[in-house]
Amino acid sequence: MLTARYTGARSIEISEQQPDPVGPGQVQIEVAYAGICGTDLHIFHGHMDGRVDTPAVIGHEMSGVVAAIGDGVTTVQVGDHVTVMPLDWDGTCPACRAGHQHICQNLNFVGIDSPGALQRLWNVDANLVIPLPADLRLDHAALVEPVAVAVHDVRRGEVSRGDRVVVIGGGPIGVLIATVARHQGAEVTVLEVDPGRRAAVAALGFQVLDPTGTDPVAWVDEWTAGAGADVAFEVSGAAAAVLLSTDVVKVRGTVVIVAIHPEPRPMNLQRVFWRELRLLGARVYERTDFETAVHLLDSAVIPADALISAIQPITGTAAAFADLESGRAMKVLIDVGSAEVPA
Amino acid sequence: MLTARYTGARSIEISEQQPDPVGPGQVQIEVAYAGICGTDLHIFHGHMDGRVDTPAVIGHEMSGVVAAIGDGVTTVQVGDHVTVMPLDWDGTCPACRAGHQHICQNLNFVGIDSPGALQRLWNVDANLVIPLPADLRLDHAALVEPVAVAVHDVRRGEVSRGDRVVVIGGGPIGVLIATVARHQGAEVTVLEVDPGRRAAVAALGFQVLDPTGTDPVAWVDEWTAGAGADVAFEVSGAAAAVLLSTDVVKVRGTVVIVAIHPEPRPMNLQRVFWRELRLLGARVYERTDFETAVHLLDSAVIPADALISAIQPITGTAAAFADLESGRAMKVLIDVGSAEVPA
Repeated sequence: MLTARYTGARSIEISEQQPDPVGPGQVQIEVAYAGICGTDLHIFHGHMDGRVDTPAVIGHEMSGVVAAIGDGVTTVQVGDHVTVMPLDWDGTCPACRAGHQHICQNLNFVGIDSPGALQRLWNVDANLVIPLPADLRLDHAALVEPVAVAVHDVRRGEVSRGDRVVVIGGGPIGVLIATVARHQGAEVTVLEVDPGRRAAVAALGFQVLDPTGTDPVAWVDEWTAGAGADVAFEVSGAAAAVLLSTDVVKVRGTVVIVAIHPEPRPMNLQRVFWRELRLLGARVYERTDFETAVHLLDSAVIPADALISAIQPITGTAAAFADLESGRAMKVLIDVGSAEVPA
Repeated sequence: MLTARYTGARSIEISEQQPDPVGPGQVQIEVAYAGICGTDLHIFHGHMDGRVDTPAVIGHEMSGVVAAIGDGVTTVQVGDHVTVMPLDWDGTCPACRAGHQHICQNLNFVGIDSPGALQRLWNVDANLVIPLPADLRLDHAALVEPVAVAVHDVRRGEVSRGDRVVVIGGGPIGVLIATVARHQGAEVTVLEVDPGRRAAVAALGFQVLDPTGTDPVAWVDEWTAGAGADVAFEVSGAAAAVLLSTDVVKVRGTVVIVAIHPEPRPMNLQRVFWRELRLLGARVYERTDFETAVHLLDSAVIPADALISAIQPITGTAAAFADLESGRAMKVLIDVGSAEVPA
């Protein structure tokens, strides 16, 4: 089978590998599509070489069809459409024992810490396999994982109907958070510095502002009649956005930290204190978020076609990373089965 | 009557002033004791001159006896022992309308934004007057306000029985937070850099560490069997403490920001994200916190005698500020009635 393997900074090797036989308790999935995300790009840039063993089959956003099941698997059947929730927790650490398995202190993030979806036949523990409706398109279903991130973030922020929500950063996760929040009845404003991304966000019907042009604090103040937003999501990763996030929310408002901030960021703790703000970290998802994400894609709440910028064959995986790092693409999928179609 | 008035940086003027007559809806309180706190010291240093109109009668921690009541006042009687919850909200701003009057967007903090307790006869809106049990010593009762701060902080942090709690900063508010948290069944460790304060905290039966000696992260890790603390309170105001606060709490743990941080502080948002932490600002108190504070003082949960380092006559107000800024004192009270006793 064809695989795309990360072999070191900026290097992807496409090679023929022998699939492993499906083991007891495993499901063998014929992978249809795999999405690549910011974390994958981070790996591609070599920034996670301390964590990733090369050569590494990465990829943790995917859809596929059950090709075989191992002994003892009763939850899916051959031919079922499925996706994978790529979190493999130990079940014994303090976080797991407290019920927060999704952020297990010894989490194996499948596709980063162990082999992922950029291979035609992928063996996955049956517990991680999530059934999909048969009529959900498999390219759309490759978005379940990032949609689950957004569902988790919005749930963590306790967004309610009628809330005014500010999303800082209009990339794929920002747009998905905006979409999920709007679906829950919130009014959403997206802040985004890139004009191309602003146009894409506006085309989805969102209010979108350039925070380097319009003063976002004054704008939100007027929008909310002096109160401030109920919830702000920091999805940009920018230091300036962290300072901004506390300035746009109301007394007792919530800031959800979604983006990766690799170094400590100056934060306005005077504002946190003065307004009794709540700052929440939000990471990955729980199974309920995954199931909600499947439902939102199946019911066309998520504008999947607008979000999928390009689909590359597995042989074009390196080109897909180039698309993504240009900043022009929203979501790029790899058609993992493509190369098996006779030319 | 004698008053102590702040007249500019490092200047306190003691002078005889004519008391105002008690107005409708007001209570005239013969002030017994007034405590001075970090905010008062900040005023004394001239750092709040933009907010305080001089000459200013400051002081917002106090106890006293009702001397007269204005028309329409039915909640207290002459001779009642009382304290004052010094928050005068407008009732109309977005925060008030949302039920967060205590942090009204246009809050008049009595004793800062309007005249306070360093005067023998103080006229206060009856709504702000809190009755005291007759048998609660008036010097102890001058601690109700800072105890209410601690009660509010611990309530905001949702401290539960059995929780492991880290308090960073062993000054008066840190010690009160530790005391209230312990009373609610938490195990508490206090981190404090000053040896004198460490000794005072240890004398109250708390585990206390020097965070510049012992590695507090390793210590907490061992204390909590690898989990991390349930709640950390940042009460020190130090930049290093902000970075430390996120390192000592468990997955989904809580950091409560109690201290004033006048400038943005580097915060480890990667840790906030990774452990899905919750950071909460906590400011002043609500009426329920004040009532709880009265009860905790009346039932001797609060070690009031140990916390009151000195009582100065009103003529010694400047000396009291000097005691406080030396860092050796915990709580210094002004005996506001003292000078009226014939020599």
